[in-house]
Amino acid sequence: MPDIQDPHATASTSAHSAKSAGRWGRHGEAPAISADMAEFLAHEVGVAQPWVESASVTHLDQRTGPVSASLVDLIARAREIVGAGHVHLDPQLRLRATTGGSYTDYANLRSGAQVDLPDAVISPADHQQAQQLIEAADATRIVVVPWGGGTSVVGGLRLTGPRIALRTDRMQDMFDLDSQAGLVTVGAGMTGPRLEALLAPRGFTLGHYPQSWEQATIGGYVATRSAGQASTGFGRAEDMVAGLRVATPRGEWSIGRAPASADGPDLTRLMIGSEGRLGVITEVTLRLRRRPTHQRYEAMAFPTMAAGIAAFREMAQTGISADVMRLSDAAETATALRQSAPTGALGQAFATYLRSRGITERHGCLAILGWESTRRTLLGSRRNAAWDVLRGFGAVSLGRNAGESWRRNRFQAPYLRDALLDHGYLVETLETAGTWSQLLPIRDSIHAALVHSLSDATTTPYVMTHISHVYETGASLYTTVLAVADQSSPVSQWARAKQDVTDCIINSGGALTHHHAVGRDHAPWLASQVGEIGLDVLQAVADQLDPRGICNPGVLIPPRAPQVPTK
Amino acid sequence: MPDIQDPHATASTSAHSAKSAGRWGRHGEAPAISADMAEFLAHEVGVAQPWVESASVTHLDQRTGPVSASLVDLIARAREIVGAGHVHLDPQLRLRATTGGSYTDYANLRSGAQVDLPDAVISPADHQQAQQLIEAADATRIVVVPWGGGTSVVGGLRLTGPRIALRTDRMQDMFDLDSQAGLVTVGAGMTGPRLEALLAPRGFTLGHYPQSWEQATIGGYVATRSAGQASTGFGRAEDMVAGLRVATPRGEWSIGRAPASADGPDLTRLMIGSEGRLGVITEVTLRLRRRPTHQRYEAMAFPTMAAGIAAFREMAQTGISADVMRLSDAAETATALRQSAPTGALGQAFATYLRSRGITERHGCLAILGWESTRRTLLGSRRNAAWDVLRGFGAVSLGRNAGESWRRNRFQAPYLRDALLDHGYLVETLETAGTWSQLLPIRDSIHAALVHSLSDATTTPYVMTHISHVYETGASLYTTVLAVADQSSPVSQWARAKQDVTDCIINSGGALTHHHAVGRDHAPWLASQVGEIGLDVLQAVADQLDPRGICNPGVLIPPRAPQVPTK
Repeated sequence: MPDIQDPHATASTSAHSAKSAGRWGRHGEAPAISADMAEFLAHEVGVAQPWVESASVTHLDQRTGPVSASLVDLIARAREIVGAGHVHLDPQLRLRATTGGSYTDYANLRSGAQVDLPDAVISPADHQQAQQLIEAADATRIVVVPWGGGTSVVGGLRLTGPRIALRTDRMQDMFDLDSQAGLVTVGAGMTGPRLEALLAPRGFTLGHYPQSWEQATIGGYVATRSAGQASTGFGRAEDMVAGLRVATPRGEWSIGRAPASADGPDLTRLMIGSEGRLGVITEVTLRLRRRPTHQRYEAMAFPTMAAGIAAFREMAQTGISADVMRLSDAAETATALRQSAPTGALGQAFATYLRSRGITERHGCLAILGWESTRRTLLGSRRNAAWDVLRGFGAVSLGRNAGESWRRNRFQAPYLRDALLDHGYLVETLETAGTWSQLLPIRDSIHAALVHSLSDATTTPYVMTHISHVYETGASLYTTVLAVADQSSPVSQWARAKQDVTDCIINSGGALTHHHAVGRDHAPWLASQVGEIGLDVLQAVADQLDPRGICNPGVLIPPRAPQVPTK
Repeated sequence: MPDIQDPHATASTSAHSAKSAGRWGRHGEAPAISADMAEFLAHEVGVAQPWVESASVTHLDQRTGPVSASLVDLIARAREIVGAGHVHLDPQLRLRATTGGSYTDYANLRSGAQVDLPDAVISPADHQQAQQLIEAADATRIVVVPWGGGTSVVGGLRLTGPRIALRTDRMQDMFDLDSQAGLVTVGAGMTGPRLEALLAPRGFTLGHYPQSWEQATIGGYVATRSAGQASTGFGRAEDMVAGLRVATPRGEWSIGRAPASADGPDLTRLMIGSEGRLGVITEVTLRLRRRPTHQRYEAMAFPTMAAGIAAFREMAQTGISADVMRLSDAAETATALRQSAPTGALGQAFATYLRSRGITERHGCLAILGWESTRRTLLGSRRNAAWDVLRGFGAVSLGRNAGESWRRNRFQAPYLRDALLDHGYLVETLETAGTWSQLLPIRDSIHAALVHSLSDATTTPYVMTHISHVYETGASLYTTVLAVADQSSPVSQWARAKQDVTDCIINSGGALTHHHAVGRDHAPWLASQVGEIGLDVLQAVADQLDPRGICNPGVLIPPRAPQVPTK
């Protein structure tokens, strides 16, 4: 079995596929950047050079030397457990298993940096095989990294050293649908589109639509505490989980109970957001909603961001939130209007509105509200009550077309980013959450930090922010930054900015992350959120479930100096 | 300091106060049992003899022998920390600190059983004093039991051995009100009535109304994951917590962040429901609601329990739940009508309804819906939509008077229980939750188990159940049982029944507890809910935060046989 002896042997053939991996879509799928947009970027950000992808990309493991006997043993055992056809040594697949969707991931690949590949990608068919695989890995002390959709933007999959990727792609079964309760159990590898397709004819929806929806998996939603675009109405991932089945080195753990209990601390919450560090989530029991039969998406303009925030707060605190609530600041509004240029309808409507109010384009803010219901009359009464509030804060309707257009294009941003990267622009997003009165100060400090970090003599970043998840106590902030990429060292260019802006978010009282999770990129700041005691508690739970530390080490809990043992 | 040398010295004076402690209210506060009710009980349950409270009650500690030097040290240190006036050795207070509100607690006291008192009751003024006290207790290896309202019905306060009670009565401050976000921080000893009185003039409410509202504390709500009577609209205790400050032997732990985050697992959820086993919650940051300006409570009748359940399910799953939703089974309906006898209006309305439908009294079920809102129009549209559903399931309105009457009397049941105990009846409640299709089967099996356990040749228990907390996936079940008390061994009479009925709830797939918590009484069953791995995880967290095991040992995690150490 020479391929087991050295799974790295064929890695040098991966150069091309690795270059393709530095993007969200396939080569050729990215939309064209319009001349108008190109001019806007050149004017607002600076002139960029098309990204010259490295010709010398090798993606060979940084590690050299023979493969360990334990790894050979584990791969042989894995073939017995899952079948030889589901143990993959192909470098393309191994590369995908360690690559997320962050700018750092893409820039790394585009600039030809070395990537440490996992030694094998192994696809168990079900919980039982996953459990056996984890136990085999534990016995051989080989690290296991779960790989679902591969959409982490926080380095959740990025690590070095001998390891296997446990791919959840074969665990896509749906079972135990309780149509009375609206509960269903699914394999962790189920994707959003597949789940919604299975649920639709049965009259249900999950209603979880993160921007990564096309590729992400249910297991990933849960492991990272994600929030979909309709989280205001449908809840966050943690609100959707009624139960979990987890494969840990200590054995199978099934937890959770519908509809509610006071059975001590809710231990499902310990696995939700555990990012593979406490074991691999193999099955999720989800709370479903009846599939809405009435929908209305609409756009509106506010005179200022502050007016929009005040209106959203009033809606949230009086029980008339829409299911989708988004509010763009003036900078994002400007680009949204420009992107809609092909039809021009939204831009014209907005301009008409601004003129009629005597408002400058510098302050006007676009908002999208999406209403979903199984009852037409209820949708109407909620919406009517909301418009009473909205009008009070100066909102003017821009109609349904713009709202529907947002809805149709809601998963397109990552493809647009591919195009912008091709054009030589750094594009990255970051997010936080704050209470209502914190939102504008946090946004301002984020913008200032990014402008400070990413400006030079000839270029200035373009920074824009929106609110997209609304709670009674506050909301999320989601910032996109465009800058001219430093193609000679893109990763460190962004790393410096990320360090500065994260410090600034923490100092402003914002959440370290609202829905992107911790991964490796945010781990250095986790103590600021949960305390050193919190890290110790997480470590104690990890030591209990995974005593040998084989489960995705490095996420969540930052490496700390070893403590001097006490007597 | 002789009183420190032996804090038990004056315990024998506590006989009278201890007898008074075997009830919810003060002596003389229990309502009279009407002749009609007495006849009903005699007919349905059996003839009981007024409870003869033991004349030989001593309530002396079962422990004898000298007080340990560590305890003497701790009490001296406690006087330095909190001030001598806040270290209480009075046996009355010490008795209250170890007595909850369960039938077992009351029967124990009424029948003169020995009670192991804590050695001192200590009231820190704030978090800092509580933290110092915990650290002093940890240094002397003396157990600490937090004592808030003393309303545990699961033995949360009941233990033996040297220990101090950390009373939270002085920690009732309210600070850091953020009126934009609707967030406030309060001391753990704040009671519901005091908090609502402080919030009302500021336009806010917490909206948490457990039956123990008059006595229970915010810290207790959180430590036990309680659910108030309006939880359907206002959420459970865990939904109300934005942050926590905890005193642990490892030091202060502050956790939580509003409004939402993906900062790894939500560690606040580890403390919510921790029942004092992981430290003492000293401050809670609460999510508030705007104080409703419009309220409507109303009663209705359903032809059967099944029809009521189906209507409640339809409301919950189409987003038109009321804030309070209660549905009594036919047995509870019969007693509710009888209790309302003084006016008779409800009983007459109900009888008229039943006759008009040709329904026998055996099946008709009473329901209460309570609507609360800051907008009259929204209350109306929700209620109208709900009545479309309700009528479809045969509901007939019994008007607002009955609803308002329920609301006025919502905290009266424990006083009525005092009266029933005085008359010689065993009265206890138990609760669970299940998915919609489980509810009737679980209810039936609970009733069967109780009738089997508590019947004898001459008496049969009266068992009645209601739904009072509604979720999209299911609901809670709350059962009250009335039986003739075995005054010679009341504790073991109930212990046998509790064992049987809990086994039966678990076997039927119900939650071990929906809102009463685990305490010591439910601990033996916790593994059935969270698995042995779950218990190990809880133990690992406890070992991390409380390495010497001084924090309320015995709750949550059942004592287990010591494991043989592995090499």
